[in-house]
Amino acid sequence: MIITLEHGVPQQDIDKIVSVLQKYSYAPTEVKTQQSHYLVGIGTDEIDIRSIGHLSGVKDIHRVSDPYKLVSRKWKVTPTVIDLGDGVAIEEGGLSLIAGPCSIENEEQVEAIVEHLNHHNVKIMRGGAFKPRTSPYSFQGSGFNGLKMFYQIAKSHGIKIISEVVAASQIEGMYDYVDIFQVGTRNSQNFDLLHQLGSIDKPVLIKRGMSGTIEELLQSAEYVFASGNEKLILCERGIRTFEKAYRNVLDLNAVPVLKEKSHLPIIVDPSHGIGVRRWVEPMALAAIVAGADGIIYEVHKNPESAYSDGQQTLNFEESSRLIEKARAVFELRRSL
Amino acid sequence: MIITLEHGVPQQDIDKIVSVLQKYSYAPTEVKTQQSHYLVGIGTDEIDIRSIGHLSGVKDIHRVSDPYKLVSRKWKVTPTVIDLGDGVAIEEGGLSLIAGPCSIENEEQVEAIVEHLNHHNVKIMRGGAFKPRTSPYSFQGSGFNGLKMFYQIAKSHGIKIISEVVAASQIEGMYDYVDIFQVGTRNSQNFDLLHQLGSIDKPVLIKRGMSGTIEELLQSAEYVFASGNEKLILCERGIRTFEKAYRNVLDLNAVPVLKEKSHLPIIVDPSHGIGVRRWVEPMALAAIVAGADGIIYEVHKNPESAYSDGQQTLNFEESSRLIEKARAVFELRRSL
Amino acid sequence: MIITLEHGVPQQDIDKIVSVLQKYSYAPTEVKTQQSHYLVGIGTDEIDIRSIGHLSGVKDIHRVSDPYKLVSRKWKVTPTVIDLGDGVAIEEGGLSLIAGPCSIENEEQVEAIVEHLNHHNVKIMRGGAFKPRTSPYSFQGSGFNGLKMFYQIAKSHGIKIISEVVAASQIEGMYDYVDIFQVGTRNSQNFDLLHQLGSIDKPVLIKRGMSGTIEELLQSAEYVFASGNEKLILCERGIRTFEKAYRNVLDLNAVPVLKEKSHLPIIVDPSHGIGVRRWVEPMALAAIVAGADGIIYEVHKNPESAYSDGQQTLNFEESSRLIEKARAVFELRRSL
Amino acid sequence: MIITLEHGVPQQDIDKIVSVLQKYSYAPTEVKTQQSHYLVGIGTDEIDIRSIGHLSGVKDIHRVSDPYKLVSRKWKVTPTVIDLGDGVAIEEGGLSLIAGPCSIENEEQVEAIVEHLNHHNVKIMRGGAFKPRTSPYSFQGSGFNGLKMFYQIAKSHGIKIISEVVAASQIEGMYDYVDIFQVGTRNSQNFDLLHQLGSIDKPVLIKRGMSGTIEELLQSAEYVFASGNEKLILCERGIRTFEKAYRNVLDLNAVPVLKEKSHLPIIVDPSHGIGVRRWVEPMALAAIVAGADGIIYEVHKNPESAYSDGQQTLNFEESSRLIEKARAVFELRRSL
Repeated sequence: MIITLEHGVPQQDIDKIVSVLQKYSYAPTEVKTQQSHYLVGIGTDEIDIRSIGHLSGVKDIHRVSDPYKLVSRKWKVTPTVIDLGDGVAIEEGGLSLIAGPCSIENEEQVEAIVEHLNHHNVKIMRGGAFKPRTSPYSFQGSGFNGLKMFYQIAKSHGIKIISEVVAASQIEGMYDYVDIFQVGTRNSQNFDLLHQLGSIDKPVLIKRGMSGTIEELLQSAEYVFASGNEKLILCERGIRTFEKAYRNVLDLNAVPVLKEKSHLPIIVDPSHGIGVRRWVEPMALAAIVAGADGIIYEVHKNPESAYSDGQQTLNFEESSRLIEKARAVFELRRSL
Repeated sequence: MIITLEHGVPQQDIDKIVSVLQKYSYAPTEVKTQQSHYLVGIGTDEIDIRSIGHLSGVKDIHRVSDPYKLVSRKWKVTPTVIDLGDGVAIEEGGLSLIAGPCSIENEEQVEAIVEHLNHHNVKIMRGGAFKPRTSPYSFQGSGFNGLKMFYQIAKSHGIKIISEVVAASQIEGMYDYVDIFQVGTRNSQNFDLLHQLGSIDKPVLIKRGMSGTIEELLQSAEYVFASGNEKLILCERGIRTFEKAYRNVLDLNAVPVLKEKSHLPIIVDPSHGIGVRRWVEPMALAAIVAGADGIIYEVHKNPESAYSDGQQTLNFEESSRLIEKARAVFELRRSL
Repeated sequence: MIITLEHGVPQQDIDKIVSVLQKYSYAPTEVKTQQSHYLVGIGTDEIDIRSIGHLSGVKDIHRVSDPYKLVSRKWKVTPTVIDLGDGVAIEEGGLSLIAGPCSIENEEQVEAIVEHLNHHNVKIMRGGAFKPRTSPYSFQGSGFNGLKMFYQIAKSHGIKIISEVVAASQIEGMYDYVDIFQVGTRNSQNFDLLHQLGSIDKPVLIKRGMSGTIEELLQSAEYVFASGNEKLILCERGIRTFEKAYRNVLDLNAVPVLKEKSHLPIIVDPSHGIGVRRWVEPMALAAIVAGADGIIYEVHKNPESAYSDGQQTLNFEESSRLIEKARAVFELRRSL
Repeated sequence: MIITLEHGVPQQDIDKIVSVLQKYSYAPTEVKTQQSHYLVGIGTDEIDIRSIGHLSGVKDIHRVSDPYKLVSRKWKVTPTVIDLGDGVAIEEGGLSLIAGPCSIENEEQVEAIVEHLNHHNVKIMRGGAFKPRTSPYSFQGSGFNGLKMFYQIAKSHGIKIISEVVAASQIEGMYDYVDIFQVGTRNSQNFDLLHQLGSIDKPVLIKRGMSGTIEELLQSAEYVFASGNEKLILCERGIRTFEKAYRNVLDLNAVPVLKEKSHLPIIVDPSHGIGVRRWVEPMALAAIVAGADGIIYEVHKNPESAYSDGQQTLNFEESSRLIEKARAVFELRRSL
């Protein structure tokens, strides 16, 4: 059950509502976000919510039978809009194109891609400065210096950036240099990291775990929301199965299902999903037709010489073609 | 290695080629189909294929490094066209819509669906008469009588049919009453059945096993081809994973990959794939954009009262909308 | 619901019971096996089974809430004994060792293994004459001639044999030359084959599908039982997952679970399970401690030169050591 | 390639070795642990390691072709012993029993279990104070206060404890109150946490990710080792598959494989593995026979009232029986 509280509700009103919830054997959790103030009640008894709805301080009350609550569409039917400022937003019914290299390498690399994106009016750029790598001996990213350089070049060209955070201790240092924090697939259930990301006011994109269920992805988003941050984006990036003909199985089934279950926008990552350059385009287009609110993919001037993930990274020509086709497919989807 | 033999090649020429192959430690398999005559050579040594290419009786020779041979695109670059007669074909670059009930129930049911399909100019109808069911106590299908009734009604309206064969012993009895034999996911590696289907001259659609790899699906098709039947269609229908939010994970990654690896047409089954009625449409459209040559889905006048699979079956209104959108998406794909 | 009928029950008694079942909305299936005569009722309504229990012709009646019925332990608490004659049996509380080559090759090969088994008093030998192979160009087995040779040599030394059947059409021809029919993992849901195996009176060992659930394995056994054959053995042989460090994941969790759910004996196949020779022994011993009623493994005089599966096949020395250890572990299990 | 350096090797020697490595295109990483000092060289060229072996400061040099290096048995053939002091150790060839509740609840609970363990001479107790839970509204553990209470009671009875760390920021605070840090399945690839655990001198037990491969588990251990901590324990705890008859698939195949690939001890967790109380015992015994160096399982005075995981937690009677049988099975394994 989700109770939205009135703005500036006095503490004694909250106490009263909590005591009524407890009387009904509902465990209350108080959630204060930048946007609003809630009480989430967890319980199993059937109760008449009107008996709570009329209490002083209650603005609104909804039953939510899902295991996740605040991210559920059962409660909030209007889709969440992630406003990045300067007219850039990620939202239902839109098509957010997010592109960039796997890893930030150097100024020349970033500038070339920024120019490519600007040419196509793509407004959000991806790029990792902290890379979670299976081996401790692999390239671990260019770190804070790389991130700052990335941010400054992008910003000077009006481009927003998204970059992965791999440790709670980095949040503060990264804060001024990212527009969106990305939580990677291996940290999808790093609850401490998710909890800490609840205390900031910048958007967080959460990738599905490589063997994460739809419900677990939504619960991970619930962690951030319940810790105070409503600015959330979900990302399907492929799951791990028995099939070895491609890197992962990009699971487009997740798109209509997540759209139905949650009010949060859904982005699809075909690069990590299928993991092979020449197959990225069809999967990206399929994701858009399936209802994704955007795609995030890897692009590089010379994929062959990229520090990481070159085999799944598009070159500029392929990227240009994808952008054009993606917009055509999106226009068709809107018209159907 | 695939050697296409000249039409009417004399036996002594074949013997000579075989002996050369054996000299190079290549194990030869002679394959005679309705269309052509081949020698498939399996070996690992590097040889100069020109030394075979000039032998008498050899029309053409190709190296194929894939584990599957005759179904590989490395050998046959022109896509295979499945001609069903009367202007109906399943082929690369086309959009074959195949729809119908999970199970054939009665004349009234079949007639209603035939009318629905005819109204939309859909030329191929699916419908099971022999149902492979997990439990021996579930409805096992209407059998030969159901199949004959289905075929006759469809034929009288100019509609081709596809129906599942679950035992080699049924092939002969079914032969006159189907246009396409379907091999279901549980029989995807029933090699005896596949082998027997090689001896007929009607098309065979092979569904991917529920945990079958891309390579295994192609090898299953190879069984039928190597037994004499080139008229093959591949079908992606969802794989089994840890995720339980949907029936299966419809794996659209298979579409571009199969298109690249094989010259056979690829059909996608979103009904069994995602398994929930209201999510069938987005997955069907995504499949088309991803490059599928057609889709096969379940439709019924009253899905709620269908004998089987009602939860994933569209009603006529939903089906009409899907057909219209599918064609619009297909037109866009062609234009990109 | 399972109703065991009196021996020689008259038809009118059956009709009466059926009509009562139907009155309660229970769909009846009559099952006649070599051992007994049953009515299986499928329904969901709560009914007082005593109202059926007192009807004429009813020997016994049990509620079985599982989706599988006749193979459930909820109905039949005494374990099923598979009596192979000559004092050889597969049964709960015993340790059946079954060993032999992947494929039957020639007399010399069979004789060497027979001698090895006889030396260790191992009474059941495995060996495939019909091999289901992913590729049509791989060795497909030595066929009926190989099987007959295998059977005759084994029989002359007092050894029972198990061999895989891959097509319903082979059952009749194989009948005189096998003691146990094996259904392989790829045919685990070949319902036609399972149904046909119901009409014979020789035991059938059913391997779990490579992505088959526990429930599906039991339902496959239910098919054979409901078709008339109660002599069933279940076999865990490894499932397909994301892990590629071994051939399959031998799933020993299945052992205690199947023992609890079914009255049928459970055999474990560590050779196909883990698929690497030097790891077969620990998995075999683990299976026995976990409660398996026996193990089936591959042995060959020269595994390196075996026609198939050499990498997972033990040589005689390894096999001797395994047999000795297996018996020691089994003795300990009995004493705990 | 792993170069073990002489104790107190001067910097100029290291510089020289590094320059030789770089000349051969091997990227060097210097690793300093509490025990020793290494250079790990990553490269692909074939080189004669003797040309490095004779350099000043080199104690030993080994080629390691595995992707993980320092945890590989190819380099270090003597098994690693985890000495916890007071005669308690986890090591190859031993049987470490580790038992305790899922969550630390209160003094009474801890004391009862301590008494139970002491009675059976079990020397290591598990208990979570920080619980990673899928839902933010579930019980999150008793925190530092719970951990301190747990540690003090256990210590006063001579029992060592293991407890899960879920955030790098907790390491310092936990340090004085745990004998072994546990990294849970969801943090198995939390590389920041693993890296931070490299800087302490207490043992770390790393659980396999729920869809983690054998190689990934070893690479996670490599992270800790390469960050300075050699005191590592690997733990198999079940993987996520399609099967829903049990919580996870406890993968005992991992036991012989990890024993072969690594010099680190291997512990198995049957409680989280199969996840059902009455099936824990057979899986625990199977793990021991398969070669595990110990088991970790959940026990509680009243499993039904445990704060978490009660369904997979043994009561004292069941635990007593398991301990006795585990030791008998272990004795047998040693004697084989």
